[in-house]
Amino acid sequence: MLDPSSPVPLYYQIKTTLLDQILQGRWTDGELLPSESQLAETCQVSRATVRRALAELQREGWVITRKGIGSTVAKPKLEQDLLRFYSLARSFGGGPHRVSSKILRRDETYADSMLAKRLGLETGGLVMVIERLRHVDEEPIMLETSYLPSSLCPGLTELSYLEGLYDLLETTYGIYIARAEEYLQAVTATPDEAALLEIPKDTPVFLVERISFSPQNQPVEFRRSVVRGDRFRYKVELQQN
Amino acid sequence: MLDPSSPVPLYYQIKTTLLDQILQGRWTDGELLPSESQLAETCQVSRATVRRALAELQREGWVITRKGIGSTVAKPKLEQDLLRFYSLARSFGGGPHRVSSKILRRDETYADSMLAKRLGLETGGLVMVIERLRHVDEEPIMLETSYLPSSLCPGLTELSYLEGLYDLLETTYGIYIARAEEYLQAVTATPDEAALLEIPKDTPVFLVERISFSPQNQPVEFRRSVVRGDRFRYKVELQQN
Repeated sequence: MLDPSSPVPLYYQIKTTLLDQILQGRWTDGELLPSESQLAETCQVSRATVRRALAELQREGWVITRKGIGSTVAKPKLEQDLLRFYSLARSFGGGPHRVSSKILRRDETYADSMLAKRLGLETGGLVMVIERLRHVDEEPIMLETSYLPSSLCPGLTELSYLEGLYDLLETTYGIYIARAEEYLQAVTATPDEAALLEIPKDTPVFLVERISFSPQNQPVEFRRSVVRGDRFRYKVELQQN
Repeated sequence: MLDPSSPVPLYYQIKTTLLDQILQGRWTDGELLPSESQLAETCQVSRATVRRALAELQREGWVITRKGIGSTVAKPKLEQDLLRFYSLARSFGGGPHRVSSKILRRDETYADSMLAKRLGLETGGLVMVIERLRHVDEEPIMLETSYLPSSLCPGLTELSYLEGLYDLLETTYGIYIARAEEYLQAVTATPDEAALLEIPKDTPVFLVERISFSPQNQPVEFRRSVVRGDRFRYKVELQQN
């Protein structure tokens, strides 16, 4: 199975072989791979070599390695097309995935200077805050905090149903989102975020900040999302111009 | 400066106050902020509260905190428009930033099954490999490995000048890139990557995989980039459709 005379390092050969087997469905989600020592024996390499192959697979999200347990096959990452990324509900609702939210916070507060700048308000202006822990297929995937100028959507946080925020803005307040600016960063989860998202702390996450604008170019929402890096990847299609 | 009667947590008030001062240029890049104990005394809060504010600023890339030294103001993150993200040279060349590359590897190898699938080759087909450590303003920012079918660009790795790969493909081989598919993941740097990028290991990084296609829809390049999360953010402009 391995070719020791190849210039391709052995750990990399093991990695691609395992990955091919995962992609071909040899093991299902959650199934345990052979142990480090079994793989080392089968492949006639050191455990360190196997460990390196598994570490790469773990880092890229194909397996989950737990001390004392071993490596299990990870669920495939959820994928979202960045350019159509208007709404989790619109991206995953209706498809094979079930989307739901737990509302962690809904109240009104005062804008600090950063928030005021982003929403085109005076510092101290009133904003609605909605914090949601969003699940796909019962699994917590992202933590989203939305801030909207209270004057645009009075009573928003008192609505009984807060799913599909952009649809709500349209139907209840006649507010349409025409465009958005989005910024993506790669950071580690804080302990609080990690606890809510049920991931080890210091797991890499996307920090996505988005400002949405009305057709009149008025800021409608500032949204800060913490998105699990181990469960999510973004796709972008680029055209040469 | 702080308002203990506000519903906004004290650590968050400290964070936004410091951030405002950073944004207003009170300190320059690399300058040391007041120490934890100084800030605790000035603000009349516990050191734990100050520490939490600084941790948030560090996580978002505004300050760099080092044990035994304190927190210094970070350089602003480089920003790249994802939708115009065809080339680092084209994005940052010509602007105020200086772009350069160190070539770590240039040779020919055999495609493993993953690579073959991505480049539309048979497994074992010949590919050119170019691995570059790319610097902006003398700082290592991303590690890029490009794989191209050898049949498309014979002799590529022997060219003396390998900067501006897409321009080279056009001028030397008459190959144009018409579109690309790009996938973004948030992962942690491996020890090797961290050493090359001069960051602590386990620093969050973007793992960007891109397949570029010719106008005839033939895969021309598979590129795998590891991009420093502490120095880079992506911008996306979305239009409602």
